[in-house]
Amino acid sequence: ITFKYKVREALDVLDPASDALIFGHISNAEDLARAKSRPLKRVVVVDENVHRLYGDRIEAYFEHHSAEMRLLVLPTDEEHKDMDMVLEIAAAIHDLGIDRRLDPVIAIGGGVCMDIVGFAASIYRRRTPYVRVPTTLMGYVDASVGAKSGVNFQGKKNKLGAYLPPVLTLLDRSFLATLDSRQLANGAAEIAKMALVKDPELFELLATYGSKLIEHKFQELPDDLGVDVPKRVLDSSIHTMLEELAPNLWEDSLVRLVDFGHVFSMELEMAMLFDEKLYHGEAVAIDMAFSAVLAQVRDQIDRPTLVSIIDMLRGLQLPVWHEKFDAAMCNEALYERVKFSQGQKIPLPVAA
Amino acid sequence: ITFKYKVREALDVLDPASDALIFGHISNAEDLARAKSRPLKRVVVVDENVHRLYGDRIEAYFEHHSAEMRLLVLPTDEEHKDMDMVLEIAAAIHDLGIDRRLDPVIAIGGGVCMDIVGFAASIYRRRTPYVRVPTTLMGYVDASVGAKSGVNFQGKKNKLGAYLPPVLTLLDRSFLATLDSRQLANGAAEIAKMALVKDPELFELLATYGSKLIEHKFQELPDDLGVDVPKRVLDSSIHTMLEELAPNLWEDSLVRLVDFGHVFSMELEMAMLFDEKLYHGEAVAIDMAFSAVLAQVRDQIDRPTLVSIIDMLRGLQLPVWHEKFDAAMCNEALYERVKFSQGQKIPLPVAA
Repeated sequence: ITFKYKVREALDVLDPASDALIFGHISNAEDLARAKSRPLKRVVVVDENVHRLYGDRIEAYFEHHSAEMRLLVLPTDEEHKDMDMVLEIAAAIHDLGIDRRLDPVIAIGGGVCMDIVGFAASIYRRRTPYVRVPTTLMGYVDASVGAKSGVNFQGKKNKLGAYLPPVLTLLDRSFLATLDSRQLANGAAEIAKMALVKDPELFELLATYGSKLIEHKFQELPDDLGVDVPKRVLDSSIHTMLEELAPNLWEDSLVRLVDFGHVFSMELEMAMLFDEKLYHGEAVAIDMAFSAVLAQVRDQIDRPTLVSIIDMLRGLQLPVWHEKFDAAMCNEALYERVKFSQGQKIPLPVAA
Repeated sequence: ITFKYKVREALDVLDPASDALIFGHISNAEDLARAKSRPLKRVVVVDENVHRLYGDRIEAYFEHHSAEMRLLVLPTDEEHKDMDMVLEIAAAIHDLGIDRRLDPVIAIGGGVCMDIVGFAASIYRRRTPYVRVPTTLMGYVDASVGAKSGVNFQGKKNKLGAYLPPVLTLLDRSFLATLDSRQLANGAAEIAKMALVKDPELFELLATYGSKLIEHKFQELPDDLGVDVPKRVLDSSIHTMLEELAPNLWEDSLVRLVDFGHVFSMELEMAMLFDEKLYHGEAVAIDMAFSAVLAQVRDQIDRPTLVSIIDMLRGLQLPVWHEKFDAAMCNEALYERVKFSQGQKIPLPVAA
């Protein structure tokens, strides 16, 4: 299995001149001939925000390509990330009667949208192709590559899901230009994670340019001397993630560096779900800050390193503590970890 | 991926002296050591019939092995083969807090039980090991080997599901001794299918011994001169099935001989779901008889071959027509086939 992704520019994925959402997932001549010989059908899932910003272009795109399109506008947020929404999408796929090999389901949106759509496609007829088009930074760097999909169940994060990679991921950072700072910081938390566990150069870029990246929404920076820091940060993040994922696609090994920041955060995030909302990346940042403090208390990193980690997170406008994350919640998170993840480790930073 | 199955005798899988349901799925020393170092947990799913016949032995078995066991007694029939039951099983798995690699979920029952449990295990935490112990002939020859699981959705058969093979299948024909003739004929339809599409020797055995196999419930026949025909029939059926499945585990190819008998039968079976009940194998037999007639009309087989096919099915006490299977239903089935299975073929017999 390989991950097929393409980096695009200037939203050309929604340009009628592009056929990426029509034939981009097909990799052999026989399938292409068959796909061209029959009516095109696409289920497209977006959230309300994407619909408001790009709904008209999406409709026009598929009309131009004479594809029968069923557009689902769903509240794809963490509270609704459940089996009911998966079944709603599966029902739409069923109703449209798509070709089980040629007509991919398309998710255009954030990480939650990709998680839900990926899971619905994974179980419909046991496997239906799907395409990811991330429009948020979290979707871009975290949910876009890799095989995982899933929904919350019994009040716990991602307890139901599948490991089916998308047939294609289309990455275009132009979508990020419409996000606000908090949404950008949310996704930046996952970039910070990859930097901390694997990539010292990426760490340096974030430490130096963090606040500017958020301010300029990962588009061109006015004064980066042609380096194109945002592009380098995004590319490094995707490459580092793929490096981690590819040898361990089905998680046979549970020693996963990418679990960093995802041990205590789950508890906090689910506790805040129906309260004042905390984003996934914010919870991850709080977990990473706490884990870094833990590592310093255990003498695995020195104090200046701890400070540089906290400063880097703050530069990305991420929170580093939360009043609800107290000793009781920490204990509960450790209890859940031991109950469900026997053999799975809790990653902590050590000095290089 | 390999299919791990073991043929057992005399219900020894429920004998406390056997540890097949405790450690039988573990294939390396490291996992075995870890499994022995910690409390054992098993979710076991059975239907009411299995519970009545074997409930006490199942409880005693796990008590003997000091395993914490959650026994779910569920109406695992075609009407209840839906997402609700999958989620009920997933909730029990979640509640017990099993080890996601060492504690398999166990299905003891018929084909539907195995389909539902396999699907619940496949999606819980994206992959949880499960063990199949078929107690019906349908479960033994059809649902026991292979990776497929699934449930009905939107009134259509198996529209949601997964391709995750069990970590272990335990095959013991002693379970079949408590079945009635109609249940045995139901499973025999799938054996007849394998005989028709792949195995002339199996066809001969069924043509000669069909009614005796049903009468003696696939246990020893009084006069088979030591050949052990029931054992040969069951072994051939499993081997032929594996031969078909192994090279095409995820159904990349949709040219599947094992679809024989499963084209028109789906429509008939779902139409009869809440009416007077028709078993899956009965619907498959009616479909095979109709397909054979179709092949004869198209001059692909001669009349004596058609008669021998019909006689073989009748010998197994299977129906070969149904009053509700009329031209309208046949058209509807073909429409559904074309709508959903582009590129998938309708297998018909031809003369050897």
